[in-house]
Amino acid sequence: MTIMRLGRVQLRVPNWEESIEYYKNVIGLIETYRDENHVYLKAWDEHDHHSVILEKADSAGLDHLAFKVRFDEDLDTYEKKLNEYGVATERIPAGTRVAEGEAVRFQVPTGQYIELYSQIEKVGNGLPLVNPAPWPDGLVGMAPPRLDHLLIAGEDVEGTTKLLQEVFGFSMAERVVLEDGETPLATWLFVSNKAHDIAVIKGPNGGLHHIAFYLEEWSDIRKAADIIGKNNISLDKGPVRHGITRGTTIYFFDPSGNRNEVFCGGYIAYHDNPTITWTIDNVGEGISFFDKDPGERFTTVFS
Amino acid sequence: MTIMRLGRVQLRVPNWEESIEYYKNVIGLIETYRDENHVYLKAWDEHDHHSVILEKADSAGLDHLAFKVRFDEDLDTYEKKLNEYGVATERIPAGTRVAEGEAVRFQVPTGQYIELYSQIEKVGNGLPLVNPAPWPDGLVGMAPPRLDHLLIAGEDVEGTTKLLQEVFGFSMAERVVLEDGETPLATWLFVSNKAHDIAVIKGPNGGLHHIAFYLEEWSDIRKAADIIGKNNISLDKGPVRHGITRGTTIYFFDPSGNRNEVFCGGYIAYHDNPTITWTIDNVGEGISFFDKDPGERFTTVFS
Amino acid sequence: MTIMRLGRVQLRVPNWEESIEYYKNVIGLIETYRDENHVYLKAWDEHDHHSVILEKADSAGLDHLAFKVRFDEDLDTYEKKLNEYGVATERIPAGTRVAEGEAVRFQVPTGQYIELYSQIEKVGNGLPLVNPAPWPDGLVGMAPPRLDHLLIAGEDVEGTTKLLQEVFGFSMAERVVLEDGETPLATWLFVSNKAHDIAVIKGPNGGLHHIAFYLEEWSDIRKAADIIGKNNISLDKGPVRHGITRGTTIYFFDPSGNRNEVFCGGYIAYHDNPTITWTIDNVGEGISFFDKDPGERFTTVFS
Amino acid sequence: MTIMRLGRVQLRVPNWEESIEYYKNVIGLIETYRDENHVYLKAWDEHDHHSVILEKADSAGLDHLAFKVRFDEDLDTYEKKLNEYGVATERIPAGTRVAEGEAVRFQVPTGQYIELYSQIEKVGNGLPLVNPAPWPDGLVGMAPPRLDHLLIAGEDVEGTTKLLQEVFGFSMAERVVLEDGETPLATWLFVSNKAHDIAVIKGPNGGLHHIAFYLEEWSDIRKAADIIGKNNISLDKGPVRHGITRGTTIYFFDPSGNRNEVFCGGYIAYHDNPTITWTIDNVGEGISFFDKDPGERFTTVFS
Repeated sequence: MTIMRLGRVQLRVPNWEESIEYYKNVIGLIETYRDENHVYLKAWDEHDHHSVILEKADSAGLDHLAFKVRFDEDLDTYEKKLNEYGVATERIPAGTRVAEGEAVRFQVPTGQYIELYSQIEKVGNGLPLVNPAPWPDGLVGMAPPRLDHLLIAGEDVEGTTKLLQEVFGFSMAERVVLEDGETPLATWLFVSNKAHDIAVIKGPNGGLHHIAFYLEEWSDIRKAADIIGKNNISLDKGPVRHGITRGTTIYFFDPSGNRNEVFCGGYIAYHDNPTITWTIDNVGEGISFFDKDPGERFTTVFS
Repeated sequence: MTIMRLGRVQLRVPNWEESIEYYKNVIGLIETYRDENHVYLKAWDEHDHHSVILEKADSAGLDHLAFKVRFDEDLDTYEKKLNEYGVATERIPAGTRVAEGEAVRFQVPTGQYIELYSQIEKVGNGLPLVNPAPWPDGLVGMAPPRLDHLLIAGEDVEGTTKLLQEVFGFSMAERVVLEDGETPLATWLFVSNKAHDIAVIKGPNGGLHHIAFYLEEWSDIRKAADIIGKNNISLDKGPVRHGITRGTTIYFFDPSGNRNEVFCGGYIAYHDNPTITWTIDNVGEGISFFDKDPGERFTTVFS
Repeated sequence: MTIMRLGRVQLRVPNWEESIEYYKNVIGLIETYRDENHVYLKAWDEHDHHSVILEKADSAGLDHLAFKVRFDEDLDTYEKKLNEYGVATERIPAGTRVAEGEAVRFQVPTGQYIELYSQIEKVGNGLPLVNPAPWPDGLVGMAPPRLDHLLIAGEDVEGTTKLLQEVFGFSMAERVVLEDGETPLATWLFVSNKAHDIAVIKGPNGGLHHIAFYLEEWSDIRKAADIIGKNNISLDKGPVRHGITRGTTIYFFDPSGNRNEVFCGGYIAYHDNPTITWTIDNVGEGISFFDKDPGERFTTVFS
Repeated sequence: MTIMRLGRVQLRVPNWEESIEYYKNVIGLIETYRDENHVYLKAWDEHDHHSVILEKADSAGLDHLAFKVRFDEDLDTYEKKLNEYGVATERIPAGTRVAEGEAVRFQVPTGQYIELYSQIEKVGNGLPLVNPAPWPDGLVGMAPPRLDHLLIAGEDVEGTTKLLQEVFGFSMAERVVLEDGETPLATWLFVSNKAHDIAVIKGPNGGLHHIAFYLEEWSDIRKAADIIGKNNISLDKGPVRHGITRGTTIYFFDPSGNRNEVFCGGYIAYHDNPTITWTIDNVGEGISFFDKDPGERFTTVFS
C-alpha cells in the first residue's frame, strides 16, 4: 500500500473573491501561493506546500483530486497497473502547477480525474522540528489540521470502487446497498487507518458531493458550527453523527456552491475489519444517526 | 428572592407504559414512588424526593409546575402578594401528593397552574454527605443531574411575564419582540443564576412547549443524541446552539408527545445583566444559531 | 440575598510589566483603564467596567475584594447589619477608583478587606444587546468569560465564615473539618447558584490562596493548560477534578506569585443543599480527586 | 507495509484476582476465555478474539507482544527478512494459545519477545455488521475501543529501533536524543497512521514502561481519571498532554504494578512526516507539556 493520503483537491470556484476569503478566514486554510486564476492553500498541520487549489471558473465542481504516494517509483508501478487494468494514463510534467513534481493522471469510471504524485515542496506545519509546542499561534477560523477525504459521485459506483480496490488496494469500510442487497449506492474506502480516504456515491458523473477537513474533537465541531452561524454560511446538515464511520460532522457550502464537511471521530480502520453494510431503508440513519433524516439537499445536490 | 428553582413538573402521559420506560431508561430519571396513576421521578443529583410526576391521562400536556421556595413563611408572603396583585390562590394540603408539604396554587394569565412549596421529603443524591465521589455508579440513559427549566405557552405572554417579574422578582434575560419592537413573542426569565428558570411563548393557552433537563457539557449532548438515535426517539431539533441563552441543546418528544430538551451551557445570569432583545426576523438565529432554521414543528407543536 | 457576586479583586503585583502582559495575553482579560500604579481589567463576558485591578506593589497579595450588591440601598442595610454584628465599617467615596460608585469597606476576622458596592460604569461585553452572536471575535489567551470566586486564608476560618453566613446570608456548600470532626480547616460559601463565591482556609492572616476565573468546559481547561505550557507559566496543580465542588481546575501562578485558578463544572448549588463534609484524612481527595495528592505547595503557599 | 497493528500483549500479573477484576471492570475489557493461569480479554471495538492476555506470574512484566500482519504469507516473508538481518526466529504452532493461528517469534535487542501472526478467531465488536449503532450498550469502566501501543525498555534503544525500521518498515515519528544530539534516549515508531504503534526507551532490558489503550476524546480522559479516583488506582501522571505525539494521556498502575496508559489525540502520522526531535533538556516538556515535570516515577519505574 503506498498511497498515503488524499493529497490534493482542485476546486472550481465561480464566486472567486468571496471563496478565497472563505477558505482562508472561515475554514482557516493558509495561502501559500497565488496566480491570476489559482490560489494554493494548505491546512495548518500539513507539511506539503498545498492541499487545496482554488481555480477561477464559471461553475463549481472538482477539477481533479490527487493521491500522494510514498515513493517516486510508485508512479511507474501504478501507471503500469492502471494500463493493465485498461485505464489510460497521462503524465503531468513537474512544475505544471506550482511546487509539484511529476504526476500520473487518469480518469475513473465515475468521471473524475485522479492524479498520483510523490514530489511536492515541503513548507512545514508552522512548528519547529525540535521541541515543538502542540499547536502554533495565529490560527483562524475552523483551523482544521488536515484535508481528510472526499466523496465523489457518478453512475458507475461499482466501477470506480473496484478500480480503487484492485489497482490501489483500498479496502471497503462500509457500503450502502440498494433493495437487491448487492448493488452499491455508495462505498467508503480507505488505505490509511481512517474510516475513509475517498467515498463514491451514485450521482451525476464527475460530480463532487463534498470535500472534508479533519477536526480533532466534538468541541471543535461546535466551534465550527458557531463560525458557520457567525458568518452566515449555508449549512446543509449537522452537527450530527454519521452511522456510517461513526464520525461526527457538519456539511455546509462554500460561497461557490461546493459542499464542505468538517469531520471528527470515526473508528480506527484496519484492513482486516469486516465491511459494514447499510440497507437502503436505513440510509437515513447511516448518514444522520440522531434524526435519521439526511434532508433532501444532502442526496440531491452535487457540484 | 426566595424562589429557588423549578422544583417540579407534573406531565400528562397518555402513552403510559412506554412513557415510564422512557423517562427511566432513556432520560435516566430515578423512580421514587408509584401509584396506579402516577410515577414519581427524580434526576440523580437532586436531593428532593421528586421533580417529575408522570400522570396517566388521555392527552399529553402539563398538569402543573411548581417552584420550590426557600422558607416556609414564603408561602404566606407570596400568597399575600398574589392576592394583592389580583390573583386568586388555593392551598393544597400536605400529603395531597406523596412526600410533599403544603402548597399554594394559582393560575397565570397564560393558563398554567403553578404551585409554591417549601417542604418535600429529602432522599439524597446517591452520594454520601461525607467525602463523596463526583458521581454515583449505576446511572443510565442521558442521566441529567437536574430538571432545569420549562417553556410554557399562552396568549398573554406579557401578563404571565409581568406577574412573574412583579410578584416573584424574576429578571428577564432575553426576549423576542414582534415587528413593533415591543410586544413580546417570548420571554426568558430567571431567579437563579441560570439564563432561564422559566420561559413564556405565544401559543395555545395552558400549553407546554418543553421541559428541559440540565446536562453538564457538549459531550453529554452528543451522548444524549446517540441515545435518541439508538432508541428511535422522535428528534425535533439539534444538537444546536441557541442564540438565545447561548446554550447548546436538543429537542425531542417523549412517547406521549411532550417535548423534552436537554440543555447545557448558557451564560451565568445576574440580575444586573441587561436584557437581550431578539427581533422577530432573527428569531431563527435566536433558536437555532447554526442554521437559523428552527423548523416548522418547533414553533407550532405544543402539548 | 442581595449580594450578587464577587465583583472585584485588587491584586498586588511586584512584577509589574510582566504581570500586566500575563493578565492581558495569557489569561486574556481586557484592559479598560490604566494609571501609573494600576491597570483595570475585565473578563470578556462581564458588562461592568472592571473586575480585576492590578496594583504596583512591593509584594504579591490581595489588596481587597469586593462584592457587588443588587440595590443601592443595600449599602445602608449591610452597613447597619455589620455594625450590629460588631464590625466597623468605612465609606469609600465614589470615584476613589475609576468608574466605581460609593463602597462600604470592612475587615473580616481573617484579615482581608472587603468592600460592598452597587454602582460601577457599564462597558458591555463586546456583543450587541440585540441579536447577539454567542461570542465575540478577537478573544485571546484562556479568555475566561468571568471572574468566578476566590479563596482567602487566615487563622479564624470560623469567624469569617460565620460573618459571611450571618450578615450576608452565604450558605456553606462544603467544608473540611479537622480531626475533631468540627473545627473547619476550610469552608466553601455561596450566595449565587455556583458551588462557591468565596472560600476560606486556615493560613496566614490576610492571605490569598487564589483567585479563580470561570471557564465553560473541560476542553477549555485543556486549552488553558496548553497555554500554560506554551508560555512557561508556573503550574501548581492540574488539570484535575476537585472532590470538593466537583469542579475541574488548574492552579498556577501569575508572574508576581499570586495563585490563579481556571475552573469549570461543579454542581448547581441551592440554599437547601445539605452541606458536604470532608474529613481531614480525605482532604487530598477533596482537592485532587484523581491522584489524591494536592502537592505540598498547594497547602503551604499563599500570597 | 503489512504489519497492521499491535495485536496482542501478554502481561504477567502476580496480583491475580485483583488484576482480573481491574482489567475487566476498571479498564473495561471483555473476557473471552479463561484457563487456570490465563485470562483472555479484548477491547470492545476489536473484532479479534483477544488483545490482552493476563498470565498468573510471580512478578509483573511483559511476557511478549505481538503484531498482527495482514496476509498469511507475511509470516514467511518476515521470517526470511529477520533471519537475513541476523535475528533467530521460532515458529509457535497454531493453538498454542486459544483462538490463535501460527506465529513467528523472535527477540529484539532490548530483550522483548515479539510475535507475528495473521490468524486469530474473530468474535466481533458487539455490533451488527448491518446497520450498526455507533456503540454497544453495556460498556463498563473506561471502555477503550482498542489496545493502542506500548513502550518497551532496554539498553539498546538504537538496535531495536533499527530492526523495527529496517525489517518491518516502521517510520520514526519522534525521538528524544541525549546531549550529543544523536544517541536516542527513546524513539516513537509507527506503521499505521497513529503517532506510535510501539516506542522504545532506555531502561532495563526486557522492561515494560506501559501498555496504552485508545480513548476517543479529552472528555473520555476525564472519565477515566474519575474512575481512577473512584477506584483508588495508583495514578502516575496526568491528565496531561504529551509534547511528544501531542496526545493527551493518563498513566497509572494495574494492581500488579504494570503501568497502563489511556491515550487520545495525537496527530495523524504519515510516512513522509519529518521526524521530530526532542533534546534531553526538553524531555520534561515532551512527556508532560503542561508542567514540564514527568515526575520521578515516570522515568524510573518499569515492570
